[in-house]
Amino acid sequence: MDAQASYLAELVQHGLLIPTGVDGLYGRSGVFEDVVDRFNTVITGVGGKDGAEVMRFPPAINRQHFEESEYLKSFPQLAGTVHSFMGNERDHMALLDTLEKKGDWTTGQKATQVVMTPAACYPIYPTMAKRGPLPKEGRLVDVYSYCFRHEPSLDPARMQLFRMREYVRLGTPDQVMEFRQLWLDRGQKLMASLKVPLKIDVANDPFFGRAGKMLAVNQRDQNLKFELLIPITSEEKPTACLSFNYHQDHFGHLFGIQQQDGSWAHTACVGFGLERIALALFRKHGLDVKQWPAAVREKLWP
Amino acid sequence: MDAQASYLAELVQHGLLIPTGVDGLYGRSGVFEDVVDRFNTVITGVGGKDGAEVMRFPPAINRQHFEESEYLKSFPQLAGTVHSFMGNERDHMALLDTLEKKGDWTTGQKATQVVMTPAACYPIYPTMAKRGPLPKEGRLVDVYSYCFRHEPSLDPARMQLFRMREYVRLGTPDQVMEFRQLWLDRGQKLMASLKVPLKIDVANDPFFGRAGKMLAVNQRDQNLKFELLIPITSEEKPTACLSFNYHQDHFGHLFGIQQQDGSWAHTACVGFGLERIALALFRKHGLDVKQWPAAVREKLWP
Repeated sequence: MDAQASYLAELVQHGLLIPTGVDGLYGRSGVFEDVVDRFNTVITGVGGKDGAEVMRFPPAINRQHFEESEYLKSFPQLAGTVHSFMGNERDHMALLDTLEKKGDWTTGQKATQVVMTPAACYPIYPTMAKRGPLPKEGRLVDVYSYCFRHEPSLDPARMQLFRMREYVRLGTPDQVMEFRQLWLDRGQKLMASLKVPLKIDVANDPFFGRAGKMLAVNQRDQNLKFELLIPITSEEKPTACLSFNYHQDHFGHLFGIQQQDGSWAHTACVGFGLERIALALFRKHGLDVKQWPAAVREKLWP
Repeated sequence: MDAQASYLAELVQHGLLIPTGVDGLYGRSGVFEDVVDRFNTVITGVGGKDGAEVMRFPPAINRQHFEESEYLKSFPQLAGTVHSFMGNERDHMALLDTLEKKGDWTTGQKATQVVMTPAACYPIYPTMAKRGPLPKEGRLVDVYSYCFRHEPSLDPARMQLFRMREYVRLGTPDQVMEFRQLWLDRGQKLMASLKVPLKIDVANDPFFGRAGKMLAVNQRDQNLKFELLIPITSEEKPTACLSFNYHQDHFGHLFGIQQQDGSWAHTACVGFGLERIALALFRKHGLDVKQWPAAVREKLWP
């Protein structure tokens, strides 16, 4: 934790991150943002020729779709619902009065129809379901958005709001497994070209509670999730910067995405954690991008 | 309203916007996003040489700063607070049970420390205050983020989540008024170069309730807000695509941003509504960007 807090302090001191007073919520400097944008362009350089459909969603999704996604079963602690004031003028006066008296005015807020996006790919499943059965070749989608996870932390690599770029494959088990293997290879090659140390490992999501422990074990036993890990503030516990997930027919079943033969579509995704990758690059190559190795600079600023 | 709903339907039919089932919440196609990105680059082309400090904040801000901003006094109905599950395993079972029974599980959510960003410039005022008194020449900041306003609508130009690019000037009244005039001129020239019809008018913010009516009248009487209006779905009621706001010492006073002489800083901002501008361009020049006038294409895709 000390290494994390001290890297955070260093990033703030160099102006790359701008503190807001909330752990895990930071502004980014122009330089930090440029690294994120450049790396995002590099991803497109690798995946852009595959013919993915580009979709860009705002950082919140339809609450009904969120409920259908079963995210609340697995990660209730991470989700963020968006609430608003829906009262009349009298309610408004009461709200301001509570605020004035330093009381908790938030208890009067009512849930809106939107929930913070938990992962960039969530909005595409209901979108794809509406189109009817998948074509024989399946589908490939390119998404990118800010995501929210309520886990305040001093670890700069664990932000509450961060960006995730994903390619998502929908199709037969063979199609999606082939896609995942392709990106396992591409991801390693790409990150190696940026001269950061990396390893691939099987992983699990942070499922909630005791029941969640079982889900985590199952996920690992079935090799459903791999992560590309890069040391940021610890060699022993490197940080997941890319993840390669096979959802089986979880989303296909929940949202009703069918294959040609009427069976549920399988899905897989590769996700890039943009802030984490930027933090890994700053950690490895230094806080001054002008001093980064020539090979890395050529890759990002060609 | 019919014209708005029918333009929305047209945008969806052409795949430029992707419905999510919630009014005012849409995915964007790659083409729509490209127009937004290109126009954003054009803004930088106009304002980039002024030496603004680039800051990029995520789409939520510190709740404490939000409370201090007095946004709740003026626009409680538009704000979005982010809430999360903070219970134990028993609470979790109860939540899932409520969800299963189609009950309202959201009442158990507790407010987190973050609130959706209401306007792109909000996070910078506390940030600037922390730096101490402004230098003699004041400050200039460049921000860009998704913003949230809870106003579900069938008008595609009234989204719940949309992007706002802003330049914000902090300084003496003369400095900030000069800045606003500069951007009033630049904004008109820029939009005219994109061949859209436009006019400038005095305007007011959508203050809540009866007391809000007074605030709106005051704002207009004092010429604090101008808007650059472009017809999108109505000639009679064109849509505000840029706004030019003089806050007097409102934010300086609330957040404690001082000038050299100890008085509160004045602030002004120019805000570009990226989705609205894209929608205006698609409306005026057609839904196929390849058919846009050469002069417009050269500007956006130089």
